[in-house]
Amino acid sequence: MKTLDTSARGVYLICVTPFTDQGALDLASTDRMVDFCLEAGVTGLTLLGIMGEATKLTADESVQFVKQVLQRVQGKVPVVVGASAPGFAPMRELTRSVMDLGASGVMVAPPASVRTDDQIVAYFEMVNETLGADTPWVLQDHPVSTTVQMSTSVILRILKNSPRCVMLKHEDCPGLAKLSAIRAASDRGEVPRVSILTGNGGGLFLPEELSRGADGAMTGFAYPEMMVDVCAAHAQGDVERAHDLFDAYLPLARYEQQANVGLAVRKYIFAKRGVIASDAVRKPGPKLSAADVADIERLIARQTRRLAALG
Amino acid sequence: MKTLDTSARGVYLICVTPFTDQGALDLASTDRMVDFCLEAGVTGLTLLGIMGEATKLTADESVQFVKQVLQRVQGKVPVVVGASAPGFAPMRELTRSVMDLGASGVMVAPPASVRTDDQIVAYFEMVNETLGADTPWVLQDHPVSTTVQMSTSVILRILKNSPRCVMLKHEDCPGLAKLSAIRAASDRGEVPRVSILTGNGGGLFLPEELSRGADGAMTGFAYPEMMVDVCAAHAQGDVERAHDLFDAYLPLARYEQQANVGLAVRKYIFAKRGVIASDAVRKPGPKLSAADVADIERLIARQTRRLAALG
Amino acid sequence: MKTLDTSARGVYLICVTPFTDQGALDLASTDRMVDFCLEAGVTGLTLLGIMGEATKLTADESVQFVKQVLQRVQGKVPVVVGASAPGFAPMRELTRSVMDLGASGVMVAPPASVRTDDQIVAYFEMVNETLGADTPWVLQDHPVSTTVQMSTSVILRILKNSPRCVMLKHEDCPGLAKLSAIRAASDRGEVPRVSILTGNGGGLFLPEELSRGADGAMTGFAYPEMMVDVCAAHAQGDVERAHDLFDAYLPLARYEQQANVGLAVRKYIFAKRGVIASDAVRKPGPKLSAADVADIERLIARQTRRLAALG
Amino acid sequence: MKTLDTSARGVYLICVTPFTDQGALDLASTDRMVDFCLEAGVTGLTLLGIMGEATKLTADESVQFVKQVLQRVQGKVPVVVGASAPGFAPMRELTRSVMDLGASGVMVAPPASVRTDDQIVAYFEMVNETLGADTPWVLQDHPVSTTVQMSTSVILRILKNSPRCVMLKHEDCPGLAKLSAIRAASDRGEVPRVSILTGNGGGLFLPEELSRGADGAMTGFAYPEMMVDVCAAHAQGDVERAHDLFDAYLPLARYEQQANVGLAVRKYIFAKRGVIASDAVRKPGPKLSAADVADIERLIARQTRRLAALG
Repeated sequence: MKTLDTSARGVYLICVTPFTDQGALDLASTDRMVDFCLEAGVTGLTLLGIMGEATKLTADESVQFVKQVLQRVQGKVPVVVGASAPGFAPMRELTRSVMDLGASGVMVAPPASVRTDDQIVAYFEMVNETLGADTPWVLQDHPVSTTVQMSTSVILRILKNSPRCVMLKHEDCPGLAKLSAIRAASDRGEVPRVSILTGNGGGLFLPEELSRGADGAMTGFAYPEMMVDVCAAHAQGDVERAHDLFDAYLPLARYEQQANVGLAVRKYIFAKRGVIASDAVRKPGPKLSAADVADIERLIARQTRRLAALG
Repeated sequence: MKTLDTSARGVYLICVTPFTDQGALDLASTDRMVDFCLEAGVTGLTLLGIMGEATKLTADESVQFVKQVLQRVQGKVPVVVGASAPGFAPMRELTRSVMDLGASGVMVAPPASVRTDDQIVAYFEMVNETLGADTPWVLQDHPVSTTVQMSTSVILRILKNSPRCVMLKHEDCPGLAKLSAIRAASDRGEVPRVSILTGNGGGLFLPEELSRGADGAMTGFAYPEMMVDVCAAHAQGDVERAHDLFDAYLPLARYEQQANVGLAVRKYIFAKRGVIASDAVRKPGPKLSAADVADIERLIARQTRRLAALG
Repeated sequence: MKTLDTSARGVYLICVTPFTDQGALDLASTDRMVDFCLEAGVTGLTLLGIMGEATKLTADESVQFVKQVLQRVQGKVPVVVGASAPGFAPMRELTRSVMDLGASGVMVAPPASVRTDDQIVAYFEMVNETLGADTPWVLQDHPVSTTVQMSTSVILRILKNSPRCVMLKHEDCPGLAKLSAIRAASDRGEVPRVSILTGNGGGLFLPEELSRGADGAMTGFAYPEMMVDVCAAHAQGDVERAHDLFDAYLPLARYEQQANVGLAVRKYIFAKRGVIASDAVRKPGPKLSAADVADIERLIARQTRRLAALG
Repeated sequence: MKTLDTSARGVYLICVTPFTDQGALDLASTDRMVDFCLEAGVTGLTLLGIMGEATKLTADESVQFVKQVLQRVQGKVPVVVGASAPGFAPMRELTRSVMDLGASGVMVAPPASVRTDDQIVAYFEMVNETLGADTPWVLQDHPVSTTVQMSTSVILRILKNSPRCVMLKHEDCPGLAKLSAIRAASDRGEVPRVSILTGNGGGLFLPEELSRGADGAMTGFAYPEMMVDVCAAHAQGDVERAHDLFDAYLPLARYEQQANVGLAVRKYIFAKRGVIASDAVRKPGPKLSAADVADIERLIARQTRRLAALG
């Protein structure tokens, strides 16, 4: 098993959970998805997030799916599992279960019920106590889904208090100034330097975020090669090339990041690309209309042409 | 096992989950709590709600606690179990588990993510599908905790669509007009008549609600005999006596209904009354200050004097 | 004109705005209301709050109403005017206008758009700048209406930064621990001591709050004599008498504090008591049903009997 | 003065309010902005929205600014003014004032306090009554800023009830399915056909929205010519050309649509383009960092190159 630590960089893909047309877990597609991601050059995988339809899986299915992914990954990259839960007892149980299976760490977002700075800090003190000294964890800052607004100063307080928090999943959008401020604080030695992977609007600010000190992306676009290539170009100092690649995918990435329907878009593309057998989304979930499909097909065709032109 | 159906009336007590001072499940206190409730005249019990610290229990502890209660109740009154969950898969699993153990039904509140009327109605269509034809269920309308505002017309739409919804836990506060309107709709035959038990501000409007057609209370005051006696007096047509009793308890009931700290108040009183061995609340949870305890003791002393004066 | 400063204590009544049956400003009733309040022993008046239907008045009507009240008060007690506004420009204009008319100070609550501690503190820095050095102001902490949760530490930061903030209107409910903590901080000299008047659930915790160091109440119950008498008994050290009086009014106070319909209840009672000529509420606003009126009449009759028994 | 009616199409630009470096209203820049918009081919202007810093203007300044714009427009295009207000009295006053000055209509969004479908519908019944039979109005559906979620069925109920509602400003994001559904309802004759201008994420879905039946855009991008050209290409049936143009601007449009800082980005570009003299934003407002400016300059340079390549 690969360790999750503060040196993490590159692209952690937020995986979908593949189902058959009948709605059963599709383990063959799961294997294919893992292979696809590894071939695309991702440096980590994230399972059972919102886009992984975690709440539609039984406890047994969750374990089965995590097991299958870990088996296929064979320790080549770290695997992070979402562990946000309505209480600390289920969080502890889920964490122990997936860490025992071989996960590299867990990811936690605050619940909507915490509001003030002091409440947020107290919540993550409980998270530290719940996860224990052996579990590296990722702090997820995603106000759009949590409704919890964590200011820069609160994030710094959490980082100071949390020796096992190794990564910030930065999804506050827009969050460029926040990203700069957090990096500046670790540069000044005020807080430990953690890995920052961004998911802003599904990676819609990736090139700018890399310039602000992000270490990569943790998001779920159906073309992970885009993020891999953008990160690589940026790392080589070719910022314009990073933008060129990013811009070519931006119209489709934007379309895929639509709330609710976005998951159906993503599964449609993955299925079209042959990664998963079916684009089935479990109920309750979005369905694509004919107009949606026409939009997507047009955007893919345009993207293909644009990438060809770019070379 | 006692059936939960639309004829339910009287007092369904929202039970606390007793812990030892060390924080372990206290099954002896659980038995004592059941006996205490039955002796007080409650007509039902509700387990694993917010005030039951459900999210602080492991899955095993939840099962153990429900089992213990059911065993002790011996089918004398229906037992309802909270089944609100972040997704339909865990809701189905929890429901099956507790119904298999012998529960009489489950209670479901909508998650904060549903907002519009159509979203609320669609959510409860999924609830119906998830719980199946064999599980009677209680619709919980508690905007203070859920942030979901269900208008009268939405509740009527849900009742029309839900043959197995047998009870409304009415906690919208203030909700007197809503209660009147729902009763009027079932009187006119527009929707099936379900049982309505109220929890408004923890029962803080009980006499008025009984006059509007409520069938009783489902709440968690540490003096369930108050609700039992108020319901009895009201049923006998002695509305002034119902108010007299209610008013005697109101200052303490009001104090116990404070958000957050209320659970600690309740457990303190239950422990003081000898019902549970310890007033321990699991972390994260409120603690009483010396000033809080002084307040409670004063209110209990005053309540005792007032009840004596009333006779 | 009477000064508003940190020594304020007693009862500041939140006034209704009287209308005729046709919906026009009723200035004769306005005078009668002022006289009634002064005779009841209030030590201050608060105008143009939510319960004053401020947003249903034209700018001219607001000025006319404030003028009328100030003229009738003749400087006998301080008059505070609500100045919460969607922006700082209208806040400044409204403040200047009412201070020029002779108001003693203004009251400001934060808008829903500020969420984090830093945002809240920054907001009140702008408030200080907007109101200027000459305007004493009241910090209103009312999360139920604002959705803004101000922790104790944030309130202390605001008090440190705000030389002209002379009063905290404490309406966070439940807020007993918060009240104790703020008082403890000023006792330790960490922040200036400001007056704290409470409005918790419309004064539903008044005796307990006085014991925690509140200086009185700022709320709008239609029996201001209750608050006046409770404060007086408490100040004389007769805490049990304070509770006795409070408890006698509590059933009706609880009923009047219902969200939305509460204003109609209050105006009904004021009209019944002859203070205002009409209980008209401008649209959009609540209306009482026959069942509501029956509830109120029963509660008044019971209250009258209970007060007679108390002596 | 140009009428605002259901035939409106093209681009209604949400105008900024220009200030001098010292923060005063800049009327010369206001004139230049009007000229710039008209030359760019906009078909309407919208004043005093959130991006127009409406709440930072005194009542006098608002009138002065609206007057100046109307005078310069000379009736060439309709001018819409934002009239959302905390109450119906100020909404009526503001509306009368701007309609008297010569505005073509007003725009109203629901306040955060309305939540259920019935509350939303009742709110707009009051809006109809408040605005009267003579004022054409625009329904603004912008849940990101209002927190009010209006389902398709609620919007249809409002349109049925509102003879003077002539336009929907569609900003629910993502809202493609909603747009299709509303158009389908008017095609079936269930509701009157109103103009639909979109502002989705600041126009980030413009080509797709035009394909779904939108009549144009109402948003505030600092390159209004983009929207004008995209609408024109689309109207001519050259959908690929519309996408080509759109894609060239998308990276910058995305950057300008960032919450909070976006207004500073927009004013920076307008100032750089010589439209306004200063990029000053009144307090409280965002400021650009050096890193932000570097981002913008890079994006403008890339956009210029891309447009040159497109021809």
